[in-house]
Amino acid sequence: MDPERSAVPEQGPGRRRGFRRPRGRGRDGTAWEADLKALVYEGPGRKTWTEVPDPTIRDPQDAIIQIDTVTICGTDLHILGGDVPEVEPGRILGHEAVGTVVDVGGAVTELRPGDRVLASCVSACGRCHYCRRARYGQCLGGGGWILGHRVDGVQAQYARLPFADLSTHRLSPRVGDEAAVMLADILPTSYEVGVLNGRVRPGDTVVIVGMGPIGLAAVLTARLYSPAHVIAVDKAESRLRAAKRFGADIAVRPEDDPLEVVRSVTGGLGADVAIEAVGVPETFELCATLIRPCGRVANIGVHGRPATLHLEELWIRDVTITTGLVDTFSTPTLLTMLAGGRLDTGPMITHRFALDDIMRAYELFADPVHSGAVKVVLTRA
Amino acid sequence: MDPERSAVPEQGPGRRRGFRRPRGRGRDGTAWEADLKALVYEGPGRKTWTEVPDPTIRDPQDAIIQIDTVTICGTDLHILGGDVPEVEPGRILGHEAVGTVVDVGGAVTELRPGDRVLASCVSACGRCHYCRRARYGQCLGGGGWILGHRVDGVQAQYARLPFADLSTHRLSPRVGDEAAVMLADILPTSYEVGVLNGRVRPGDTVVIVGMGPIGLAAVLTARLYSPAHVIAVDKAESRLRAAKRFGADIAVRPEDDPLEVVRSVTGGLGADVAIEAVGVPETFELCATLIRPCGRVANIGVHGRPATLHLEELWIRDVTITTGLVDTFSTPTLLTMLAGGRLDTGPMITHRFALDDIMRAYELFADPVHSGAVKVVLTRA
Amino acid sequence: MDPERSAVPEQGPGRRRGFRRPRGRGRDGTAWEADLKALVYEGPGRKTWTEVPDPTIRDPQDAIIQIDTVTICGTDLHILGGDVPEVEPGRILGHEAVGTVVDVGGAVTELRPGDRVLASCVSACGRCHYCRRARYGQCLGGGGWILGHRVDGVQAQYARLPFADLSTHRLSPRVGDEAAVMLADILPTSYEVGVLNGRVRPGDTVVIVGMGPIGLAAVLTARLYSPAHVIAVDKAESRLRAAKRFGADIAVRPEDDPLEVVRSVTGGLGADVAIEAVGVPETFELCATLIRPCGRVANIGVHGRPATLHLEELWIRDVTITTGLVDTFSTPTLLTMLAGGRLDTGPMITHRFALDDIMRAYELFADPVHSGAVKVVLTRA
Amino acid sequence: MDPERSAVPEQGPGRRRGFRRPRGRGRDGTAWEADLKALVYEGPGRKTWTEVPDPTIRDPQDAIIQIDTVTICGTDLHILGGDVPEVEPGRILGHEAVGTVVDVGGAVTELRPGDRVLASCVSACGRCHYCRRARYGQCLGGGGWILGHRVDGVQAQYARLPFADLSTHRLSPRVGDEAAVMLADILPTSYEVGVLNGRVRPGDTVVIVGMGPIGLAAVLTARLYSPAHVIAVDKAESRLRAAKRFGADIAVRPEDDPLEVVRSVTGGLGADVAIEAVGVPETFELCATLIRPCGRVANIGVHGRPATLHLEELWIRDVTITTGLVDTFSTPTLLTMLAGGRLDTGPMITHRFALDDIMRAYELFADPVHSGAVKVVLTRA
Repeated sequence: MDPERSAVPEQGPGRRRGFRRPRGRGRDGTAWEADLKALVYEGPGRKTWTEVPDPTIRDPQDAIIQIDTVTICGTDLHILGGDVPEVEPGRILGHEAVGTVVDVGGAVTELRPGDRVLASCVSACGRCHYCRRARYGQCLGGGGWILGHRVDGVQAQYARLPFADLSTHRLSPRVGDEAAVMLADILPTSYEVGVLNGRVRPGDTVVIVGMGPIGLAAVLTARLYSPAHVIAVDKAESRLRAAKRFGADIAVRPEDDPLEVVRSVTGGLGADVAIEAVGVPETFELCATLIRPCGRVANIGVHGRPATLHLEELWIRDVTITTGLVDTFSTPTLLTMLAGGRLDTGPMITHRFALDDIMRAYELFADPVHSGAVKVVLTRA
Repeated sequence: MDPERSAVPEQGPGRRRGFRRPRGRGRDGTAWEADLKALVYEGPGRKTWTEVPDPTIRDPQDAIIQIDTVTICGTDLHILGGDVPEVEPGRILGHEAVGTVVDVGGAVTELRPGDRVLASCVSACGRCHYCRRARYGQCLGGGGWILGHRVDGVQAQYARLPFADLSTHRLSPRVGDEAAVMLADILPTSYEVGVLNGRVRPGDTVVIVGMGPIGLAAVLTARLYSPAHVIAVDKAESRLRAAKRFGADIAVRPEDDPLEVVRSVTGGLGADVAIEAVGVPETFELCATLIRPCGRVANIGVHGRPATLHLEELWIRDVTITTGLVDTFSTPTLLTMLAGGRLDTGPMITHRFALDDIMRAYELFADPVHSGAVKVVLTRA
Repeated sequence: MDPERSAVPEQGPGRRRGFRRPRGRGRDGTAWEADLKALVYEGPGRKTWTEVPDPTIRDPQDAIIQIDTVTICGTDLHILGGDVPEVEPGRILGHEAVGTVVDVGGAVTELRPGDRVLASCVSACGRCHYCRRARYGQCLGGGGWILGHRVDGVQAQYARLPFADLSTHRLSPRVGDEAAVMLADILPTSYEVGVLNGRVRPGDTVVIVGMGPIGLAAVLTARLYSPAHVIAVDKAESRLRAAKRFGADIAVRPEDDPLEVVRSVTGGLGADVAIEAVGVPETFELCATLIRPCGRVANIGVHGRPATLHLEELWIRDVTITTGLVDTFSTPTLLTMLAGGRLDTGPMITHRFALDDIMRAYELFADPVHSGAVKVVLTRA
Repeated sequence: MDPERSAVPEQGPGRRRGFRRPRGRGRDGTAWEADLKALVYEGPGRKTWTEVPDPTIRDPQDAIIQIDTVTICGTDLHILGGDVPEVEPGRILGHEAVGTVVDVGGAVTELRPGDRVLASCVSACGRCHYCRRARYGQCLGGGGWILGHRVDGVQAQYARLPFADLSTHRLSPRVGDEAAVMLADILPTSYEVGVLNGRVRPGDTVVIVGMGPIGLAAVLTARLYSPAHVIAVDKAESRLRAAKRFGADIAVRPEDDPLEVVRSVTGGLGADVAIEAVGVPETFELCATLIRPCGRVANIGVHGRPATLHLEELWIRDVTITTGLVDTFSTPTLLTMLAGGRLDTGPMITHRFALDDIMRAYELFADPVHSGAVKVVLTRA
């Protein structure tokens, strides 16, 4: 880390003057001041990596962090596609980062400048009906998924994090940035909304439909419960191969009769759990046909259209269907497992870029069929 | 009980000769033999109360019972409507009865002739994957809902009960026939598939859509968990009045904005649990709109058509949707509560008939709007 | 409420000057200033109702409340008995109150002066491992049971409440002070540590040993789950009579063979749940003998000595034993039930006093055998 | 398998003549008849491998099996030590076997001669209160742990299995005898009574006290839930080494301050779960000190003496303590995992003998410190 480029202040009496962008004086005595850049949504189809104002503490619960490592989510592509209308032009995108605290508001008790933290995709007021039940994703007090959505996000050199105490996790030195940033969204999402909602248990047969990043993370986290079989379903051979590397023991394309495959390993009964990780009606409906009586369908996919629920068949089959936004209550547990070497997120990351190179990273991430991208990671220079 | 009319044999060495219909010799010395009658499905729209052959022990796990008290289910009307095609003409209907054991097969260990039993709507082989998990409704070994469906039922003077040990419950003298027969189907169904699947908890707001017999039983059994509010939804004023007698504190017609009513008592959040007790897409879809984030929809209704699942709204709301056929695992518990005076099924029964009068009882039960019928009970003369 | 005696400030620009004791000018123009009094522990066996300094905001998360209604807990008697050595002389006692907010620190977001609140016996930092799991009683961040224990309590005219946002509950106008103050400790304790830890379910047989205030509250809250039987055990006939009024259907003295009584209503099997509400080894050991195989013992009692655990008998019986300090996660639910008329705490309160009369109230509360006291309530003049 | 030595009859009309010991005629025409031998308990300290009468179908639910593979349990040593007084002299010992069905009673529906089955240590009537809840270990109908205890066991050439349908599991050809016989007792016991009762979850710190066969099996099955740490405690270095091979990541002797070790990996909090696998008060009491607030102690050990429960410390710590006899409800799941290669029981077996050599096998198994024995397996010649 080049100290001249860092805004992490010394602790001490002076620190409460607030965050200011890095500045200094060159060898020749000329004063310089860093540009602060961020990835800004400019309306459907348009984005720029451009200069932005300094983030500031607006609420005593805020923190400002310097972004060290950040990644791009499929949801960011949805926003750019214009599918998330509440995101307004001018918004800085991004909700998954690891960074270093540079300033904190007066009501922040758990963080101090210099702390290395995971910035979680979900923020939590900590006081509302849902936060008191650790359902932070449903926060009624101004939290939930807000970063890169309703407030400026973390695909930036510096970012403001609201409700910082409950929305960040201090990182152990044993956990690297790249491993940790996978826990900002993708791992807790697949684990909570897929594996835990689906109640995966040892010995189960689990089918996971969709082998994008979330589906692959569901393969990885389902394995924590030692299912007998993890069956991956995807159209792309390359993704099925990835699924096998992540721990799926069976991989099948939708056109190759997944139901027959599921039945063949379950004595004809069907899967205990089907996890939907695509977000279109067809894959949801496929999941509902793959489960046995008393089975569970756990929907992770972000849907834009209604699906057909075949209650005329399902009413008698004792099924459970769940949906959900991640709450990130499992993040501390997943961090413990990461620190203890019980979770290997390494294979999630297929490409690495400098943060300045984010426009190119987006391009590559948006075309996984050709690029083979799962997760791309961007790092501060 | 007229001993001449009873086929309950003395216990003793001779008893294994099997069940034979009641017979005797009149005062004038003439031999007589009783007719055995039953309600027989003759194809869509047609049924008769007619003479049938003696039921016989076909499997060592069978028992034969004399029917003392029996009732009619909405499902029987569906069968008569031709909606349950696997029911073949010639089938004796009925799956809810209290009776007296008159004969048992050689593998029956829990029952002996003379025992007064509840005949449950669900039979259980006790050995398959599902029975070992008390999910008897999904029995793979020949049980499940079979009475009056795949084998002859109990709207008859005598009936054969397969898997008798696990499909009947011996009755305490403190439990009357009429109270007990409500536990053959309707109470465990509403309790297991509605209240337990919906995870009703003290303080919850529970909305129940459809105030037919099952919906009213759901009101009754939801109250076992002391919810803060039970909101009944039905089109018919008479049924809403009944709902209030059963313990609903709020009653509302679908056209009077149930969502607004639910919101008004939940700080705008929505219901914790919505129980569907009708069986059409519209009511299911209504339920899905009434619940709060993290809420549960428990479907009890028997559906003939698919519903639309608005995943584009629900994916983010952490909802749980369940379906189910009753397993009757709760029947012993409900019987305990009945015996202890903790459950009052009395108000369920609106009309009483002699068993011989079953054709008239069907007529009245099929027209609840005019008759006000909830459950009709038929008793052996 | 005499406005001259109230320190609840007007909202407005001036309010941040902090709390000051009520003061004014009499009709004759003389300035007066109220004494602030509180019940102060002076060491084992000694307490006084005496003047104390103004409570002040020490941490931005604090609030100051005017105490409107307060009660005395059995734990306060333990402290006075010298059994809780971490309580230092000079400490103001009390951890159950209803009051009116008069001042809040800068990090308090949920309360404002004038709010009527329940002050819970447990405070929560909201950020630690346990608070994030709603296990506030185990707070690692400075909360837990601290009021009247490690910091000054609420048997006072005014009190400071740390972590005010998460440690208080705003009250609906439909809930009266006396009803609400029962939810500061006694009801959530009996409900969470007894009923929920014991997993009371409809149809269960529940035996509760000890009919002091907590035991009676356990009877009341166990009934929320519609058990088949609630069996109360106590030495004192007067308390057994109280238990019946609270909803126990069977009452028995320890010397009258509770095991035989339990067996007689459970077919010889034993109770599903036994709740210990005394705090001595003998009653805990009694509980362990009263439960059936697969039964649960939920300990609520505060113990000062070890008990004998008969593992040579219990190892094979599939029992579950739980202990716990209340977390108060259930308080919002219980408040909802109170507001909806689903919970009647009225019979808990046997005696009423003015707050000034607290020394006499202690005397009476400490001698329940003669006074018949369950809970005594003290109210601001 | 030598067909002349097998009593597995052909299926066909003649089969119901019952089991008779293998017999034949030699090449010289001489008739021969096999001896039937078994390991018979002759009172404290004494046992013989001796000729016994033919087992016969006594109840229509019985099956007779030829024992192919059998093992010895620590409990058998307890019986021989005279610690299980209900075992009468003359009793054939053993409750863990794989065999081949040679005869079945008339009420057996799931088995037929020739089937290869696992004989479970727990038998189940399938009809009582507990069996209906899959709590077979508590069977009230004549089952539970009866083999080699209340009826003759399976350390024999042939054995009678009561309640055969629910007490055996047909084996897939993919599962070998040796692997399967580990599922007769030791794996379901450690899994159900240790891991499931202790609610081990991903990321947990689990400490297991006692590295005998059950403790090692607890290490193996705890790993199914991906805990962050499995800490093994035992006095013997050899057993601690075995624990590491089974998947413990930390091994510690009781005298080397296990509490400090636990704290060092849990931020000072203590273990989430402590599993007792010895059966003496000291180890139970150790477990109770190792867990964090809200932790669980799952007792598997068979205890002969009471332990001290330090309620004066535990009452406030929200602990859960469980005990239990195995129910074997998990056996089908564990068999699925075995067949799917998800469970490796191989390292459990340290020594192999011919069945005839069982006296020597006992000797070696009784001295694990010198022999290093974990499980010894005996096979039909």
